[in-house]
Amino acid sequence: MAKIRGKKNSTKKEVIIEKASKLFKEKGFGASSMRDLAVHVGVEAASLYNHIQSKSEILQAICFKVANEFISHLDAVEASKEPVLKKIEMIIRFHIRMMMEQYEYVYISDHEWRHLPEPYLSNFLNQRRSYRKSLADLIEDGISKGEIKKIEPYVAVLIILSAISGIESWQRSRKQISAEVLEENMVKYLVEGLK
Amino acid sequence: MAKIRGKKNSTKKEVIIEKASKLFKEKGFGASSMRDLAVHVGVEAASLYNHIQSKSEILQAICFKVANEFISHLDAVEASKEPVLKKIEMIIRFHIRMMMEQYEYVYISDHEWRHLPEPYLSNFLNQRRSYRKSLADLIEDGISKGEIKKIEPYVAVLIILSAISGIESWQRSRKQISAEVLEENMVKYLVEGLK
Repeated sequence: MAKIRGKKNSTKKEVIIEKASKLFKEKGFGASSMRDLAVHVGVEAASLYNHIQSKSEILQAICFKVANEFISHLDAVEASKEPVLKKIEMIIRFHIRMMMEQYEYVYISDHEWRHLPEPYLSNFLNQRRSYRKSLADLIEDGISKGEIKKIEPYVAVLIILSAISGIESWQRSRKQISAEVLEENMVKYLVEGLK
Repeated sequence: MAKIRGKKNSTKKEVIIEKASKLFKEKGFGASSMRDLAVHVGVEAASLYNHIQSKSEILQAICFKVANEFISHLDAVEASKEPVLKKIEMIIRFHIRMMMEQYEYVYISDHEWRHLPEPYLSNFLNQRRSYRKSLADLIEDGISKGEIKKIEPYVAVLIILSAISGIESWQRSRKQISAEVLEENMVKYLVEGLK
């Protein structure tokens, strides 16, 4: 029987999750079966179950991994002594790079979280709400310090996060501009536009 | 048998499309059947077929209606004598209002166009590409006239359209800010951010 192979030092579970992320991105979580996943990984379905109990377990792992990365980064930025506008730039650049470097993971976490079972679904949504609230507080802080123009923080956060998720359309395109040009121009519009 | 009823002066076909837009938005185009639609309209499935041949026909009507509205508006703006930045503001405000006033139609046209049959699919995608190209040309024009800062037009268009489609998240939310506040603040960020 074929063995589950991946990058050096990856556990088999990590390899399965990595392959699943590509499958779910391509086919959608709802339409992907454990059987499809086995084909994708190149093993018998039965041997998948030695490592993973269900599709849900994989979705949970993906959504919470992505949430952890964003939250850890935000914590580090908040703890830094940078001016607010610089903090916002750091956050925007991090989001853009996640859309570049961990595209499937971020895409699934953004589009398929509705399929999370409870208690994970409510927990995930609470974390998302709290993350957006922290971004809005940061913008509020920038306004009170005179670094950012008067703007409704909720709208600023909506624009920033939606604009970055628009990178999906760049990912699907023929990529006539490079990732670097995309990042620099997004920062130019979204960060300078707050001044 | 129940009759198909709608607003005064609407044809039965228009009533069916209106009801279908709500159904497709709620359930997704793929998961909606003609039978579901008949229940939604409140008639027997057989009587739907007197007015509409298929789900596809409804999707086509929705996608091309939305495309027509955006293209006609863009034509009118391009023909006007306003400064470029004012033209872009007019386009942004029109997109925002379409997301407010014709939400289901715009949502379906944005998310379900993949289900269009040929030749409509290719035609729809060509129109979309050409629309985005016109917006990029407008931004290019603004840069060359010194009204807009140097920015990659492709990225500016991506940010503007993605930010506006983020209104979906406002539509799903408890709407703690009004449509007016949302519109004014989006214009403040997205139009002034180009200067």
